[in-house]
Amino acid sequence: MNYCSDCGGTLIRRIPEGEHLWRDVCSACHMVHYENPKVVAGCIPECEEKVLLCRRAIEPRLGFWTFPAGFMELGESTEEAACRETLEEAKARVTIESLFAMYSLPHVGQVYVVYRGTLHNRDFGAGDESLEVKLLSPEDIPWEDLAFPVIRETLKRYTEDLDNQTWKLHRGTIGRPTSQGQHDFSFSPIISSIPESEE
Amino acid sequence: MNYCSDCGGTLIRRIPEGEHLWRDVCSACHMVHYENPKVVAGCIPECEEKVLLCRRAIEPRLGFWTFPAGFMELGESTEEAACRETLEEAKARVTIESLFAMYSLPHVGQVYVVYRGTLHNRDFGAGDESLEVKLLSPEDIPWEDLAFPVIRETLKRYTEDLDNQTWKLHRGTIGRPTSQGQHDFSFSPIISSIPESEE
Repeated sequence: MNYCSDCGGTLIRRIPEGEHLWRDVCSACHMVHYENPKVVAGCIPECEEKVLLCRRAIEPRLGFWTFPAGFMELGESTEEAACRETLEEAKARVTIESLFAMYSLPHVGQVYVVYRGTLHNRDFGAGDESLEVKLLSPEDIPWEDLAFPVIRETLKRYTEDLDNQTWKLHRGTIGRPTSQGQHDFSFSPIISSIPESEE
Repeated sequence: MNYCSDCGGTLIRRIPEGEHLWRDVCSACHMVHYENPKVVAGCIPECEEKVLLCRRAIEPRLGFWTFPAGFMELGESTEEAACRETLEEAKARVTIESLFAMYSLPHVGQVYVVYRGTLHNRDFGAGDESLEVKLLSPEDIPWEDLAFPVIRETLKRYTEDLDNQTWKLHRGTIGRPTSQGQHDFSFSPIISSIPESEE
């Protein structure tokens, strides 16, 4: 950020009075411009022990697999955002069931909120942001070709819960990738699986 | 938003190519400026069946009561944000326990993420944003003087769960206030209490 979105003045970096963090402050009108984490709402669409996954048609990670997920918009709930993303990316309609996972990704300023969703029917297809969409058994999930660490971590815990037939709420923090060559999949997850299963 | 934060150009409101929502787009450099909901992280600090509440020293709702909660910052997790807000507003240290509630407030573009937290000790006090801080039994909660509908809804469900000794994960949507005179406390909550209690 270089300019004030309100008056067009030049921004300077300083700690505003009464605060303790560096912010972008307008040198003309003195407005403080805050930046906050974004919510990514996602859904694992389910049908008879299979899950609906999408192969990404857009960067980053074009060609890699994910469940439907994307940035929550103003004016919607997390559940509505998860349904909308499922409709946009997989052309599929779901009923949201339980909250499955909430992960913080501090290094990219994101909070993933992932629901389990029941597919209304077998009508689905590739939306504009997907190359293809497939209903996959857990053993057919392309583990080496998943788009992001958070997707792999979520699906790993999903298949474990499915095996155990015990649904938990998974939450925790997924950290920055290491600098050891590998990028996406070498990271140190600090994840706590809190058993908050449905009764 | 009137000006592009990147180049200082004038913003115009239009639907960018490939999208379906109105956005602020720069007339000079064509950057699309997205606005997204903010996460409010909160904590209900607990000590021997009492909860720690703060009376607000800042607007909005100066003088009214709340549990510690505030906007999540870049670079932290939801749990860290809840702990930080508790330290800032109530000068108290907590260990985060379970996720208690997640409410969407679409009319103000917020998502509340509220944890239960165990107070480390009885050291607490009013931070800069609080007039006073009190450890209160459920029967002493000032129901008529709570700061926001989401605070009342969360504490109501908290005291119910405490009565029943059954801890659930509460989630749902809290809507816009009605236009019937009353402002803060007349609204139509659409809330689902999903029993995702800890085992």
